[in-house]
Amino acid sequence: MSHTFLNACAMQPTDHTPIWLMRQAGRYQPEYRALREKFSFVELCKRSDLAAEVTLLPVQQMDVDAAILFADILLILEPLGAPFHFTPDDGPRVNQPIRTAAQVDALATDGLRMGGGSAASGSARDGSADDGSAGVRGLDYVLETLRLTRAALPKEKALIGFAGAPFTLASYLIEGGGSKHYAHAKRFMWEDPSRWHALMERISDATITYLLAQLHAGADAVQLFDSWVGVLSEQDYRTFVFPHTQKIFAALPEGVPAIQFGTGNPLLYPAMFEAARRDKGTVMGFDWRVDLRQWADKFPSVAVQGNLDPVAILSGQGVMRAQATRILESMRGRPGHIFNLGHGIMPNMQVDDVRALVDHVHSFQ
Amino acid sequence: MSHTFLNACAMQPTDHTPIWLMRQAGRYQPEYRALREKFSFVELCKRSDLAAEVTLLPVQQMDVDAAILFADILLILEPLGAPFHFTPDDGPRVNQPIRTAAQVDALATDGLRMGGGSAASGSARDGSADDGSAGVRGLDYVLETLRLTRAALPKEKALIGFAGAPFTLASYLIEGGGSKHYAHAKRFMWEDPSRWHALMERISDATITYLLAQLHAGADAVQLFDSWVGVLSEQDYRTFVFPHTQKIFAALPEGVPAIQFGTGNPLLYPAMFEAARRDKGTVMGFDWRVDLRQWADKFPSVAVQGNLDPVAILSGQGVMRAQATRILESMRGRPGHIFNLGHGIMPNMQVDDVRALVDHVHSFQ
Repeated sequence: MSHTFLNACAMQPTDHTPIWLMRQAGRYQPEYRALREKFSFVELCKRSDLAAEVTLLPVQQMDVDAAILFADILLILEPLGAPFHFTPDDGPRVNQPIRTAAQVDALATDGLRMGGGSAASGSARDGSADDGSAGVRGLDYVLETLRLTRAALPKEKALIGFAGAPFTLASYLIEGGGSKHYAHAKRFMWEDPSRWHALMERISDATITYLLAQLHAGADAVQLFDSWVGVLSEQDYRTFVFPHTQKIFAALPEGVPAIQFGTGNPLLYPAMFEAARRDKGTVMGFDWRVDLRQWADKFPSVAVQGNLDPVAILSGQGVMRAQATRILESMRGRPGHIFNLGHGIMPNMQVDDVRALVDHVHSFQ
Repeated sequence: MSHTFLNACAMQPTDHTPIWLMRQAGRYQPEYRALREKFSFVELCKRSDLAAEVTLLPVQQMDVDAAILFADILLILEPLGAPFHFTPDDGPRVNQPIRTAAQVDALATDGLRMGGGSAASGSARDGSADDGSAGVRGLDYVLETLRLTRAALPKEKALIGFAGAPFTLASYLIEGGGSKHYAHAKRFMWEDPSRWHALMERISDATITYLLAQLHAGADAVQLFDSWVGVLSEQDYRTFVFPHTQKIFAALPEGVPAIQFGTGNPLLYPAMFEAARRDKGTVMGFDWRVDLRQWADKFPSVAVQGNLDPVAILSGQGVMRAQATRILESMRGRPGHIFNLGHGIMPNMQVDDVRALVDHVHSFQ
């Protein structure tokens, strides 16, 4: 059976344009909201059976071509040594925001690696012996979610794992939560570059272990979410972020699809592409600020993903379909196109509208 | 006496790089905070004597090369027919957000023009006969602030007037206040382009009258603030914004410095430049996401402004000076450089740090 998403990632022809949507499992779904009445967000992530159920929902309901792990980019902070909590209004808050070199030094240095004999090793998808990447300290529930999802997911559907990118996670750690100006994070970065790089290294090492473990547990592809990187100039990106992102992509197995996602400053895409570039498997994700075909032609060797302004889904199905058609038409004849939004689905969207988008993309000829 | 700011705008050599700072009059100043204990923000804008005092403060205290009118981009909404108020937490809210064509039709159509015999006409700076642009219905207090400021301002210092750009004001009108995703504004724009253009036209016509009146009242230059335009793609900018911005710049007198400012999506700058281009007088403002020299070289015929990341002022004077120096060094030999931030000064900045930045730029050789 044809595996549309993976074929598109590999620049192979597909019988339709594959589509999945960032945050396709979430508050816009009544089934998800019902679960959230009984469980907190973190509880839901940690209950692998429920997290797998949530992960599978969009595939079952809307026939998207890939499921994306239901989890949060912040989950890694706990085993990294920087626990967080949710406040009723403000969203997640890091218990002790990182502002000193001593706090950086106190973070985990071992990339979250668990030794052999992990409880998770026996159930790895391919049944191979534990190679040390089968478990991730404190995040086994995520791997279990992937295993459960993969077991239930139709073979022709892909399963995407993910992690937060180092800059976005570092900003979270330093700011302590969401931010408008990233003043603490930027000061931390500019004031003492070696302290910054030490922090980025701890995060990157942990992220590498985490992503490899996700692949081992059944993910077919991974995405690195650098949702906040757009507040940087290209020069700052190259100095403070590039080497760490590059290290992560270089550590991923050749040919395994790995999606580089960022939003907010399209001038960063060339550097982000360089950082993510591997001989095979890199996919570039774009937000809605760019002309997708123009940028796909700048990076002719890799598959591209994204681009529909999420607000299109809130603008009536006529507008939404017209914008989707424009993207699809513009990408005609260009292999390696994965349809997605420029950023995530919002809680106030309607399931019917999202489904109509998926159907529209699937029926496009 | 040399007029550094205006000379730089005209691409003429200057003995130092002129500097002014967006939001250089504001909450970071103790004198301003003292006034705000007695007057609301809008009261302060409407009391021309106090607004002039606030406008002059940064020149007196820090010797910046230009004063910028103390006012708010939203003041124009009241005479346009869409009054707003301030809420304690949320900032400004439009009383009745605009969501229908009927509401657009109900807005002022006359570009806020007052007929001859305006109360303001006699006090225009050059004493010329009233040409119809000397008054602006409902905004005479702004013009009076400019007249009072110009009278007190040293001749070698420039006075900058300003207005909000049509997209930013339209978004405000439609969203009703600040926004994260601009979902209402984008839907309004995509769903019915003619309704959108009608709204943009009312705003643009009013803005033209307003800016011409500001120049008549003593402003030496004007800036158009498109602070929110960065949420658009280039295609949407060209379709929905470009013609209106172009109309405004085309209506300004040849040679009068007019600064085109936007932030958030640097891919828009080429189209923004095209929209603002006149034979003489256009200045391009940039945020911190770009390499200023690189972009100055893309637009060799015009002066450029901006670029320092505002957060640099919160990062210690060593970091701040190093970043300012990097920009100044990179611009060496390129006439038409006005030093500024990539966006505005923040309330939690220290006057001493801001003054140190001004001194640093002034002493750069």
